[in-house]
Amino acid sequence: MPYVNVRITKGATAEQKAQVVKGVTNVLVDVLGKNPATTFVIIDEVDEDNWGIGGETVTARRAQGK
Amino acid sequence: MPYVNVRITKGATAEQKAQVVKGVTNVLVDVLGKNPATTFVIIDEVDEDNWGIGGETVTARRAQGK
Amino acid sequence: MPYVNVRITKGATAEQKAQVVKGVTNVLVDVLGKNPATTFVIIDEVDEDNWGIGGETVTARRAQGK
Amino acid sequence: MPYVNVRITKGATAEQKAQVVKGVTNVLVDVLGKNPATTFVIIDEVDEDNWGIGGETVTARRAQGK
Amino acid sequence: MPYVNVRITKGATAEQKAQVVKGVTNVLVDVLGKNPATTFVIIDEVDEDNWGIGGETVTARRAQGK
Amino acid sequence: MPYVNVRITKGATAEQKAQVVKGVTNVLVDVLGKNPATTFVIIDEVDEDNWGIGGETVTARRAQGK
Repeated sequence: MPYVNVRITKGATAEQKAQVVKGVTNVLVDVLGKNPATTFVIIDEVDEDNWGIGGETVTARRAQGK
Repeated sequence: MPYVNVRITKGATAEQKAQVVKGVTNVLVDVLGKNPATTFVIIDEVDEDNWGIGGETVTARRAQGK
Repeated sequence: MPYVNVRITKGATAEQKAQVVKGVTNVLVDVLGKNPATTFVIIDEVDEDNWGIGGETVTARRAQGK
Repeated sequence: MPYVNVRITKGATAEQKAQVVKGVTNVLVDVLGKNPATTFVIIDEVDEDNWGIGGETVTARRAQGK
Repeated sequence: MPYVNVRITKGATAEQKAQVVKGVTNVLVDVLGKNPATTFVIIDEVDEDNWGIGGETVTARRAQGK
Repeated sequence: MPYVNVRITKGATAEQKAQVVKGVTNVLVDVLGKNPATTFVIIDEVDEDNWGIGGETVTARRAQGK
């Protein structure tokens, strides 16, 4: 019955997101014996203006070549 | 002072979302005696490519008629 | 397939939490036609030292009779 | 290593969001001595139809002049 | 720079939680090319009284042999 | 009407948490003109066994002197 929320910056393809769902679900089944039928994985894609690290947005960091 | 986050796949109308806000707030007022004026309900609508269950995205499941 | 997270300050009984789960699930079934079998409701009980409103913790507010 | 999620209604500018990231990071550095390099701040901008308070959506409240 | 939140009912060992952290991080590195050094995985262990599915708490379901 | 969730490893004092609440609220008031009376700040303190970075738990990293 796990719930997993994956937050990443935008840019993943539908195929990559499907692989993330599958891979993360497999980890919970393999390690914890969870039932995949009631395992949720929700992916949030976040705009680079809205993600900060080191006190700066990702937008600002990329503009500086970080 | 409760905070409630409701996550659903896309497709609800504005009227349905207003009813969810009202209904969930009423539950917290009726059961727990919370003050509605400081009860927040935030609805996140998630793309079917971004919601996984059973190791697959909802997009993939619906394509298979699940 | 909804996921709901309810965050409240500590103090609810097990019976009240069961009623919140039931009531919130019913709202999603009645308003949005969701399947209760895949509707998750997770309640987080937060310590009053860890919940802030108006720039103060609930602990501080209650000490002032707010 | 903190993670901060800020949820606001839509309407902030990129510059304001950068200031929120900077300001919140500074609080965690100053108060808790956290390392900014591993401090994440993610801002979620929520549609007014999807944010409820007092049992109503913000959309409904603003239409009534609240 | 991903952030992952895994929510499960209580009962995992420290070793299992370490394996979940490792496994989920590997998925994000392998599928999306993310940098593990800035990949966070936070596990929340939820009491069975606080997790509802099908309109009932897990506590109630287990008492009924579900 | 903002909602802020701050997630940190355990170890902050009540006084530090009160300062985080105050500081984060001030940022939202100063930068975005938000009303502090409806600004929530919730702090989650996470066990080091439950927080992963770089594919390892904080517990494992600290045992290695990282």
